[in-house]
Amino acid sequence: MYGAGDVRVEHVPDPKIHQSGDAVVRVLRSCVCGSDLWPYGAMPATEQGRRMGHEFLGVVEETGAEVSGFKPGDVVVAPFVWADNTCDFCRAGLQPSCRHGGQWGLNGVDGGQGEAVRVPFADGTLVKLPVGEDSALFPSLLTLSDVFCTGHHGVVTGGVKPGSSVTVIGDGAVGLSAVLAARRLGAEQIILLGRHTDRTDLGREFGATDVVAERGEEGVNRVRELTGGDGTQTVVECVGTEQSMHTALGVVRDGGSVSRLGVAQYTDIPFGMDTILRNITVTGGVAPARAYIEELLPDVLEGKVEPGRVFDRTIGLDEIPDGYRAMADREALKVLVQS
Amino acid sequence: MYGAGDVRVEHVPDPKIHQSGDAVVRVLRSCVCGSDLWPYGAMPATEQGRRMGHEFLGVVEETGAEVSGFKPGDVVVAPFVWADNTCDFCRAGLQPSCRHGGQWGLNGVDGGQGEAVRVPFADGTLVKLPVGEDSALFPSLLTLSDVFCTGHHGVVTGGVKPGSSVTVIGDGAVGLSAVLAARRLGAEQIILLGRHTDRTDLGREFGATDVVAERGEEGVNRVRELTGGDGTQTVVECVGTEQSMHTALGVVRDGGSVSRLGVAQYTDIPFGMDTILRNITVTGGVAPARAYIEELLPDVLEGKVEPGRVFDRTIGLDEIPDGYRAMADREALKVLVQS
Repeated sequence: MYGAGDVRVEHVPDPKIHQSGDAVVRVLRSCVCGSDLWPYGAMPATEQGRRMGHEFLGVVEETGAEVSGFKPGDVVVAPFVWADNTCDFCRAGLQPSCRHGGQWGLNGVDGGQGEAVRVPFADGTLVKLPVGEDSALFPSLLTLSDVFCTGHHGVVTGGVKPGSSVTVIGDGAVGLSAVLAARRLGAEQIILLGRHTDRTDLGREFGATDVVAERGEEGVNRVRELTGGDGTQTVVECVGTEQSMHTALGVVRDGGSVSRLGVAQYTDIPFGMDTILRNITVTGGVAPARAYIEELLPDVLEGKVEPGRVFDRTIGLDEIPDGYRAMADREALKVLVQS
Repeated sequence: MYGAGDVRVEHVPDPKIHQSGDAVVRVLRSCVCGSDLWPYGAMPATEQGRRMGHEFLGVVEETGAEVSGFKPGDVVVAPFVWADNTCDFCRAGLQPSCRHGGQWGLNGVDGGQGEAVRVPFADGTLVKLPVGEDSALFPSLLTLSDVFCTGHHGVVTGGVKPGSSVTVIGDGAVGLSAVLAARRLGAEQIILLGRHTDRTDLGREFGATDVVAERGEEGVNRVRELTGGDGTQTVVECVGTEQSMHTALGVVRDGGSVSRLGVAQYTDIPFGMDTILRNITVTGGVAPARAYIEELLPDVLEGKVEPGRVFDRTIGLDEIPDGYRAMADREALKVLVQS
């Protein structure tokens, strides 16, 4: 990506092992993330551009001398940050704060939207998938890289338990994943705020019990009506705007939690004395996908959940610029890239 | 209280049973709360004034027809809000949000700083104390009404566990109570931010392992130094100013929680993308003292904790105006009122 609206497919040098803990993974599937749309909309034009893509699965092609957990031919999924998975933050399940980790596409590490990726700390970063190179489960397995784990993080940090009431704000792929994750953990009432009928329809199939198309004060009132005036115990905020945070705080029940998954376009939140009197918690953040994959993988393999249904278009590498455009124009919900 | 700096001792009608669930309690001990100092400093002058005091213990004098749990002569402590203790919020341990509860000193309910109080929902509100009318434990037992339960709420919602690291911001009675509560739950490192040596000395006796007198950026740097650069897993914010919230967010470790106990003098908090990347939670609020008393009472009765040491002055009812002044002038940490 060279700037807003300017995504180019280019030839770059083949990845090679740099460190003894590296692996090179040939990418089979990757995708475009809703969070990629923020720079796609606003990134200042640059000369050098930046590598894109932080969600991928593929086949191990080569491993460094110290990699013990993987061998060429293994099918693997990569979480959306790489991490050693041994430091104190990783052991506490907080891989995005890994002391030695980093992001795909930065500082000489490849992005996932490409043919191959050098994976640092392969033993810590990658998770083996017990499937072949042409699995029909790839779309759902790819969501373990980010979007389904992110939805899961929202409902876990938001304290969803069997019987919980949950509001999910936003009908993008993260919002729909949060609905599915809430349903999976046994939430009883799941209110989805969104106005794209095709998306909220999938939200209903994922487990939403109510859909609210209204926004702002009207949306708050509608959720209050649906909950006997109280709001829901958990709110998962999947948009990231000032207005959506305002809505989130308006629909959360006393003693409840707002979990933030949306990329924040704000710097401050309205969180004064009224929220102290109501014992409101604001939690969430960047999901430690690596910490969740083992837990979520069996349900994906058994078909109990199909988070891959958020992909509604499949493209090749050459079509990636158009994939961004389609997602930005709301033509596509989430674009799967087949390498 | 008729306005800022204007506290008067007046004769008011004796409390009587209004509802069948009421009890009349003769007050033995009450106190002035740090939160009372905000109106003491800024309340606009009024004609009618308002009743003060929300922390008290005393003897049941009379009970309504439906009160089954108490009889005249019982020594009881009252949490700082009254509540039915049967609604869904109360059953979830969130008595400040009770559907039928309220605050002392408002809407025809007496304040605790007086000779007697009509207690609504006596069965739900009061907790019996297994002591006589002249117990030496009264100072510590009185802290179950608010300040020790409030400190406990901060460390519980902040996720303190054995081995935790905690920063407590503020060396007032709530801050010191949070130190004691953190120590009681097994926190290993407890950093107290405060600049009044007599108070931080008591903080050390309560369990603080480090004291930081610096404020603002300097204070943040000092806490970072004391924690290998990382900050602490829990921060208990006991001041309520914009600066103290800024400090709190500056000293919390990635993945950690800031628990708010201070009466918020701000309307917004700086809580943008950086805190999402760091997975920071902001939690806490008005403590459900009623939910905690049974758990904390045994330790107080056995002398394992002595939260009553926050009282450093004892006065009579007539001296209450001077008690406010002494606390506002930082002459007294917390004033005990002996009726």
